[in-house]
Amino acid sequence: MMIDQIDIFARYSLRMRYFIVPVLLLIFASATLKSQEDSLTIRSIYDEALVDGHAYENLRQLCKDVGNRLSGSEGAEKAVRWSKAKMESYQFDKVWLEPLMVPKWVRGEKETCTVTDTGEDLDVLALGFSVGTKGKLRGKVVEFRTLQALKDAPEGSLDGKIAFLNQGMNAKLIDTFRAYGGCSGGRVRGASEAAKKGADGFVMRSLGLRADSFPHTGVMFYDKEVDSIPAFALSTNSAFKLANMLDENPELELELESHCQRYPDVKSYNVIGEIKGSEYPDKYIVIGGHLDSWDVGEGAHDDGSGVIQSLEVLRIMKKLGIQPKHSIRCVFYMNEENGARGGKIYAQNARERGEEHIAALESDRGGFSPRGFTVDAKSPFIDYLEEWLPLFEPYQLHFIRKGYGGVDINPLKTDGTPLIGFVPDSQRYFDVHHTENDVFENVNERELSLGAAAMTSMIYLIDKYGMPELIEN
Amino acid sequence: MMIDQIDIFARYSLRMRYFIVPVLLLIFASATLKSQEDSLTIRSIYDEALVDGHAYENLRQLCKDVGNRLSGSEGAEKAVRWSKAKMESYQFDKVWLEPLMVPKWVRGEKETCTVTDTGEDLDVLALGFSVGTKGKLRGKVVEFRTLQALKDAPEGSLDGKIAFLNQGMNAKLIDTFRAYGGCSGGRVRGASEAAKKGADGFVMRSLGLRADSFPHTGVMFYDKEVDSIPAFALSTNSAFKLANMLDENPELELELESHCQRYPDVKSYNVIGEIKGSEYPDKYIVIGGHLDSWDVGEGAHDDGSGVIQSLEVLRIMKKLGIQPKHSIRCVFYMNEENGARGGKIYAQNARERGEEHIAALESDRGGFSPRGFTVDAKSPFIDYLEEWLPLFEPYQLHFIRKGYGGVDINPLKTDGTPLIGFVPDSQRYFDVHHTENDVFENVNERELSLGAAAMTSMIYLIDKYGMPELIEN
Repeated sequence: MMIDQIDIFARYSLRMRYFIVPVLLLIFASATLKSQEDSLTIRSIYDEALVDGHAYENLRQLCKDVGNRLSGSEGAEKAVRWSKAKMESYQFDKVWLEPLMVPKWVRGEKETCTVTDTGEDLDVLALGFSVGTKGKLRGKVVEFRTLQALKDAPEGSLDGKIAFLNQGMNAKLIDTFRAYGGCSGGRVRGASEAAKKGADGFVMRSLGLRADSFPHTGVMFYDKEVDSIPAFALSTNSAFKLANMLDENPELELELESHCQRYPDVKSYNVIGEIKGSEYPDKYIVIGGHLDSWDVGEGAHDDGSGVIQSLEVLRIMKKLGIQPKHSIRCVFYMNEENGARGGKIYAQNARERGEEHIAALESDRGGFSPRGFTVDAKSPFIDYLEEWLPLFEPYQLHFIRKGYGGVDINPLKTDGTPLIGFVPDSQRYFDVHHTENDVFENVNERELSLGAAAMTSMIYLIDKYGMPELIEN
Repeated sequence: MMIDQIDIFARYSLRMRYFIVPVLLLIFASATLKSQEDSLTIRSIYDEALVDGHAYENLRQLCKDVGNRLSGSEGAEKAVRWSKAKMESYQFDKVWLEPLMVPKWVRGEKETCTVTDTGEDLDVLALGFSVGTKGKLRGKVVEFRTLQALKDAPEGSLDGKIAFLNQGMNAKLIDTFRAYGGCSGGRVRGASEAAKKGADGFVMRSLGLRADSFPHTGVMFYDKEVDSIPAFALSTNSAFKLANMLDENPELELELESHCQRYPDVKSYNVIGEIKGSEYPDKYIVIGGHLDSWDVGEGAHDDGSGVIQSLEVLRIMKKLGIQPKHSIRCVFYMNEENGARGGKIYAQNARERGEEHIAALESDRGGFSPRGFTVDAKSPFIDYLEEWLPLFEPYQLHFIRKGYGGVDINPLKTDGTPLIGFVPDSQRYFDVHHTENDVFENVNERELSLGAAAMTSMIYLIDKYGMPELIEN
C-alpha cells in the first residue's frame, strides 16, 4: 500500500517539472510525504525487530532462567527482579516497582486421577484455587456436556459423586478465543455448581481444541454459600477416554488426590519502565502484558510473549532515537491469571496521581503471527485508528476494528482511555494455554518479533498524532 | 462482512412491509440473497473441514504409514499406491494414474562433514542430485557471502579447495518466500560456479531463517561444461560455527564424505481423482499439490499438506452434495522437488486431449494459517476473483491479489489458464522446509483444515460462477 503511494508520489514529482503545481496536488504531496515518513519509520522498526531484536533472547531468559511464575510464588518474585534489572539495563528514564498484595495458592505434590476399576491414571491438573482432597477422594462419576446441564441436575442427585463436565470448545469458531469464552465459565463456576447438587469432586475436560495429553489448568472460584470441593482438569485425551469408559460402565469410579493449599495474600509488584514525553510528559500511553503465569510450563505464550513484546516497544523506540511526545510506559502486570489485581492497582494509582492515559495497548493472546488490532473504545477512536491500517497491511496486519482490549488494561476504561488489544493468529494458542506445553520452544522468533514491531508501530503513530479529543454532548 | 450483509438484508426486509420497494432495492436484495447463499455454503464447508475433516488423519497416514517419498524411491511408489487407494475409497467419479519418467537419485549412507583440526562433526546433508565424494574429500575452505562474490573469484583461486557459500536469507522480508527466492540460486548453481574456479567441493549455509541444527537439502544442477563436484548444506548453526572458526584459522580444512548416486530415470505417476461436471463436463478446474518430497523428514508441510488439502476439496464437495458444473480434478503431482516433471506431463497430456482448464489452484507453501490467494493471470481475472474477498474475510483470508500460482500448475499458463496460489502464513515454513524437521507433529490440525476449507470455498465459487471469457484485441 505504502509502496504504491511512494510510486504515485515519484510519478507526480516527475510531472512537477513540467506543469504549474495546483494547490490540491501540494496538499496531496504533503499528505503523501507524511505517510511516506511514517512508512519509512515503520520499516525501520520492523528491520530492528527482525534483524537486531531482543525479544526472543529476552523470552528465553524469562522462560529458562526464571521459569513459571504464579502470583505469590518464588518464581514470580524472581521474575520481578529479572524484569526490573532488564528494564534498568535498557536505561529507560524511570524504572520502578508498584507494590500490591496477591493471592498465594500452592499446588503441592502432583495430583492424581485414577480409574478405580482398572488402576489407569488419567492426565490431570488441579484447577487454580482448588482446595486439596485431604487424602483420597473416591466417587462414582456423572457426566455432563454443558454447564447448564449440570445446573439443571436435580438437587442432591450428585450426593457423594464426582461431576464430570465433558464440554468441548466449539471448533467451528474461527477465532479460538470466542470458543474459549464460550466454555470458560464451566471451569470458573463448575465446582460450585456441582457442590450445589451434592458432589464431592469436580473434573472437567480441558479447554483445548486439540486431542492431546496436556491438561489445562486455569482459575476457578468458589461460591461462599456451598462447600468448596476439589476441582480438576483432565487432558482432552483423558476426557475422551473417561467418557468412553462411562459408556461401557456407568458405575465407574474415580479416585482423586490433590494437595493444593491457599495461603494468606503476599506482597508482590507490577514492574514499570517509562520513557518521558518531550511535549506532554503528563500524558501517558501504556503498553503491557502480564508477568505472572500458571505454575506449569514456562508461561511462554501466556504471557511471556506479551511482556517481552511490550519491553521491546520501549527498547526499539530508544534504539531508533524515536523521542516520544507523550510519556510511554511499559507495564509488566502481576496477577492477571488469578485475580487481575495488577491491572486494578495500576489504574487506581494512576487515577490517584491524576495521570491522563490517552491510550493503552495490551498483548495477551500469544506470540503468534500478527493479524491486527481490536479496539475497545468509542467509535470515533476506532475510526481514527483504522485510518492507519494501510501502514500495517504491508506487514500482513489486516484489521483494526472494534473488539476487546485486555484484562490488565481494562480498569483504565472507566477513565475513558481507549483500549487496544494486539491480535495474533489464534489457531495454536489453545494447544499450549495453561499447560506444561507452554514453553519457549513453542514460540517462533519471527512471529514474536513481528508482534513487537506491530505494537511499536502502533505506539509510534499514537504518540506522533495523538488521540482525538471527544466532546461529550 | 457477510454477517453485516445479512444484517442489512434483515433490516431491509423489515422495511419492505411498510414501503413500496424500489427496483434498486430489489436488485440489491437479490445480490444479497446470492451472496447470502454463498456465505452459508462457505460456512458449511468450514464446518465440515473443522469438525469432521479428514485432512489431519490423512496427513498422518501419508507421513507415518508412507513417510518421505523422493521421486524414484520406494517411498514415492508407496505414496502413489496409498493415494490411489485413498481417492478410490472416496468414490470419486474417476481415479487414475498418469505415468511419467522421473529422475532417481539416492543419498546412500549418511554424509559427513568434519573439521579436520578438531575432529568436530558439522550438521550436513548432501544437496539433491549432488555426486558423491568417492571416498573422503579434504580441502581448505574459502568463504563467500554471496553467489556473486563466488562468481567474481579469480580463475583458479579455488584450486583444490572447498567453497563455502555463507549467505543468509534476508530476515527483513515479511514474506519468507521472497527471502528464499533471493538466495535459492546459490543452492541451485553454487557448486558449478565453485567448480569453475577450481573448487573440489561446495558447502553452503542452509536456506533457513532460524539458528538451528537442521540442514536443509534441496535441488541443485550441474553445468555440463565444468566438473560435477560434491555439494552440501550445513545447518545454520554449523555454518555460523564454521565461519567463526575460519575467522580464527583461515587455514582450516574440512573433510567431506557422501555416497550419493544418480541412476537412470524410472517410471512413476501423477495420481488424479475427478468429479464429473454436470453442465460443462469438458471444462476442468484443477487443484493440486505435489506428492513427492525430499528424502528427509516426512514431507509434512512440503507438500503433504498441499496434496491432502486438495484431496479434501473433492471430499468436502462430495460430502456436502455440491455437484459441480465443471469437472473438478485433484492432481497429486509427482517430482516437483527435482524436475517438476509431473506438472509438465499433466499439462502436455491435457493439451493433447484438447481439455480446457478454466482455472488451476495449487497449495505448496505449507499447511499453516490461511492468509489469502495470489493469482497469476491477466488482470481482469484477478479483479474478478478479488470481488469474492468479502466472502473470505470472516475466515481471516485478507487478500486475493496478483502473484505466483505454483510450480506444478505453471505449465498450464501457456494455455491461458488462470493460476491461483493458496497463501498460508509463511513465518515458520523455512524452519522445516527440506529438513528432518518437516514432520507431521509440526502441522497443526486447525491450520491445515482451515486451508482445505479456504481452497474448497474458492473452487466452489469458481465452479458456480465460472471464469470470465476474455476477448483478445
